[in-house]
Amino acid sequence: MRTPKRQKKKPSRGGRQAAAAKGRVFTLAEVARELGGEVFGDPATRLTGLAPLERAADGDLSWVADARRAKGAAASHAGALLVSDREAAGGKPGVLVKNPAAAMAAFSERLFPPSRPKPGVERGAFVSPKARLGKGVAIAAGASVAAGARIGDRTILHPGARVGEDATVGADCVLYPNAVVRDRCAVGDRCILHAGAVIGADGFGYVWDGEAQRKIPQRGIVRLEDDVEIGANSAVDRATFGETVVGRGTKIDNLVQIGHNCVVAEHVILCAQVGLAGSSRVGRRAVLAGQVGVNDHVTIGEGAVMTGQTGVTADAPAGAVLSGVPEMPHRQWLRSSALFARLPELSRRLEDLARRLERLEKGGGG
Amino acid sequence: MRTPKRQKKKPSRGGRQAAAAKGRVFTLAEVARELGGEVFGDPATRLTGLAPLERAADGDLSWVADARRAKGAAASHAGALLVSDREAAGGKPGVLVKNPAAAMAAFSERLFPPSRPKPGVERGAFVSPKARLGKGVAIAAGASVAAGARIGDRTILHPGARVGEDATVGADCVLYPNAVVRDRCAVGDRCILHAGAVIGADGFGYVWDGEAQRKIPQRGIVRLEDDVEIGANSAVDRATFGETVVGRGTKIDNLVQIGHNCVVAEHVILCAQVGLAGSSRVGRRAVLAGQVGVNDHVTIGEGAVMTGQTGVTADAPAGAVLSGVPEMPHRQWLRSSALFARLPELSRRLEDLARRLERLEKGGGG
Amino acid sequence: MRTPKRQKKKPSRGGRQAAAAKGRVFTLAEVARELGGEVFGDPATRLTGLAPLERAADGDLSWVADARRAKGAAASHAGALLVSDREAAGGKPGVLVKNPAAAMAAFSERLFPPSRPKPGVERGAFVSPKARLGKGVAIAAGASVAAGARIGDRTILHPGARVGEDATVGADCVLYPNAVVRDRCAVGDRCILHAGAVIGADGFGYVWDGEAQRKIPQRGIVRLEDDVEIGANSAVDRATFGETVVGRGTKIDNLVQIGHNCVVAEHVILCAQVGLAGSSRVGRRAVLAGQVGVNDHVTIGEGAVMTGQTGVTADAPAGAVLSGVPEMPHRQWLRSSALFARLPELSRRLEDLARRLERLEKGGGG
Repeated sequence: MRTPKRQKKKPSRGGRQAAAAKGRVFTLAEVARELGGEVFGDPATRLTGLAPLERAADGDLSWVADARRAKGAAASHAGALLVSDREAAGGKPGVLVKNPAAAMAAFSERLFPPSRPKPGVERGAFVSPKARLGKGVAIAAGASVAAGARIGDRTILHPGARVGEDATVGADCVLYPNAVVRDRCAVGDRCILHAGAVIGADGFGYVWDGEAQRKIPQRGIVRLEDDVEIGANSAVDRATFGETVVGRGTKIDNLVQIGHNCVVAEHVILCAQVGLAGSSRVGRRAVLAGQVGVNDHVTIGEGAVMTGQTGVTADAPAGAVLSGVPEMPHRQWLRSSALFARLPELSRRLEDLARRLERLEKGGGG
Repeated sequence: MRTPKRQKKKPSRGGRQAAAAKGRVFTLAEVARELGGEVFGDPATRLTGLAPLERAADGDLSWVADARRAKGAAASHAGALLVSDREAAGGKPGVLVKNPAAAMAAFSERLFPPSRPKPGVERGAFVSPKARLGKGVAIAAGASVAAGARIGDRTILHPGARVGEDATVGADCVLYPNAVVRDRCAVGDRCILHAGAVIGADGFGYVWDGEAQRKIPQRGIVRLEDDVEIGANSAVDRATFGETVVGRGTKIDNLVQIGHNCVVAEHVILCAQVGLAGSSRVGRRAVLAGQVGVNDHVTIGEGAVMTGQTGVTADAPAGAVLSGVPEMPHRQWLRSSALFARLPELSRRLEDLARRLERLEKGGGG
Repeated sequence: MRTPKRQKKKPSRGGRQAAAAKGRVFTLAEVARELGGEVFGDPATRLTGLAPLERAADGDLSWVADARRAKGAAASHAGALLVSDREAAGGKPGVLVKNPAAAMAAFSERLFPPSRPKPGVERGAFVSPKARLGKGVAIAAGASVAAGARIGDRTILHPGARVGEDATVGADCVLYPNAVVRDRCAVGDRCILHAGAVIGADGFGYVWDGEAQRKIPQRGIVRLEDDVEIGANSAVDRATFGETVVGRGTKIDNLVQIGHNCVVAEHVILCAQVGLAGSSRVGRRAVLAGQVGVNDHVTIGEGAVMTGQTGVTADAPAGAVLSGVPEMPHRQWLRSSALFARLPELSRRLEDLARRLERLEKGGGG
């Protein structure tokens, strides 16, 4: 058995924090100080963990996302709450903050900082001498960086992650195990590629030449802007020519497919198993729920919302909320779906009317 | 060319068996003895392989799953059959057993035992000196085990498989190539993770802070209980806090998405490309067919069945059989779907009635 | 930092070409000579790139796929066009060829030849001494080839690619990072497996033995014929017995699921996120658009087309164009879908007729 020496974990900052997260007691006053908010109720309230309203126990800090959840606040077992409105706390102690959910995320980050591998190239990592690595990068054993690739400062490559020839990955990125950035693609700063994500596979393009499907070379790239997150086993295909683009701050869940030449704007949310066919465009802050499919060359407007499993076949205006296959306004779809379930009844009613009408026509009216 | 020495395969137990599986002749009497069943017909019937009814050839042993397949038994080319009822054999020789399909699986396991790599850590595997390995584990070149991870007895890691920091994998598990268990997640005994499966990627949680989607740290884990199987390239996300759970004996097909904080009970079947949004729950022995989508926070009851592509938007009672988007009882969906296909006809009929009614109203009745 | 020496890239043929592709100027006469076509307009027209009609700029060569796109040709900024009919060029110069799209693909291949790693087994690749490698294969660091496996001439394995025991991969194949071919499976010549594709995971088969789902051993294989392309993170499961087959020239997009014992014929197109349940069959030149689901044991006829998200529950005749869940002829589905959206209106109309009919029945007619 031969095990390459692995760097010792930093004097267990992560370890200490994890211990703290489990065992440490913090007070409401400390929370308020961390977040710059105002305490109401007893500032000495002792807390030991973080949890959402429905799952919170006695010692847990929780948050009330909006006023509609005020009832849930009263019913929750949480020990204290982050709220934007004291009324929303349902009588519990808490801290007033502008955006409770964001405050919770920030506090969680401080309480549970992610563990970081020690910087350096582990023995067993495959880094081309022609690759350029920034300061403080961590390349794990089994990860590989090809010739001409550039990796930004403090970026982390987990085992099996691969950055291809002439590709660039920005600073402060994390590539989880077996995430792949193929040749020449460009990844911005602070991007997260979850395990098995594939950036830059060939777009799906062929032309029938009379005897066989002939591959259209896919010579473009993928460009992920800053702060993009790509879920486990998702795939973003490279463009035929030019770029497939995922805009700044866009978050993509697991098992999502982005076809070649798509342009996804900034701050978009694509939930799991969404599929965008080639050359489709998704506007800023749009939200596509799980398993939505979008036809090629379709444009979805800014802030539009597609509910789960919607099949988008034509351009969707900004702000639209659409459902169904093919898509239609969500409210209309709700009404039509309710009637779909009642179709047998409607059909029987139609037959009944037909019979009665026939009787009338034969002179039996009244 | 430099190829790390690989351990010799065990004196080819697998090899011999494979040969046996192809060339060996076994008799019905031997089958009965292995399975503890009763022969009918000629116990000396010679057999050379195993195959399902429709594909079985002369020398094949097959099985009749239930009485409804009795006709298929008579028509099949199989040489002999495993049945639970002699009538089901359609005149062929066979062996009476309680559960023919289970007996077939058991016999197949004996006839074709899976090949096992030789125990040990191959040169080129990356195992932290701070990891703990059980007896008889086999870690292939290119696989990696992080600090604090524990691997149970006889578990096999294929090339590129990764077990993260402080994660645990039980005994007798198989992690196929590039399967990933991220930090702190827990996998039970006798679990199978197919190639590219990802256990414990971050849950998909963000909060809009006014300027950007802010990541909610995902600090929980995934826990797979014993005898769980996860398909190729499927993803089970870690909980925000606490655990995402997959219960004992549950079988998950390829490309399935399990969101953060989901709880999937015991002996559930999730077919390919199913997606469970966050915090949904699936009851014991439920079956979700291919491409089913389940909304967040929805509960599916024990033994419920969702047919292919169903979109589950609300809690489903135990034992329900549901279809459609949104879901409805399967029989109702069948009726409504049949009428959906006839909508043009219903619409024309409606217009016809309207015209005739108008004529009557104008005094043209009869 | 220890970085295994990597072979120098060939004296940058790829590099030169890439430079050429960006900076090089080519004339219409050169294009015609390469493709064996006839110039119309100025043969000295200078071009610098390739692009589709809508995205083409001044110096770009583009193509007109068919006569329906003739208007687009006139509107395009392209500098010159490949066309099969001079009328389709909208007044621009160009080259007459039989199949413009195929000609474009061929020209693109010549202008942008794919970069090839230098042949050889990189240090850090794991190749069993019992594997057989053809001439000119390139096995990257982190790739692995098991005992008994055979790799054909000039085939390329990128980092993390895995070829299992006794598996065969033909000549001129490319396995991108982390693509997996499991034991005993067979891949033909000129196949492309994109990153994370999994060939030969176990089929999804269990039998309930009264207490648990018992795994049915999956002892068959997958056979990919020549010229097959499999998308990123797609999965093709091995047969229970026998073979799962993907026919010659078939192209499969990302995140596609092919169940055990499926038989996909030649020159089929399966778009992203399609799922075929076990033992289904897809006929020659059929096209399944994105997210289509196909039930087990269903047969889709030659040349049939399933539009996006179709749920195929029964055999589909050759040449059929089907849509909907369950599937129906596409035109019928279009009509029914249009009426689905109008169901609230139809329902109101029905109620109106009922009221008026009742009035007539009570003697209020006319």
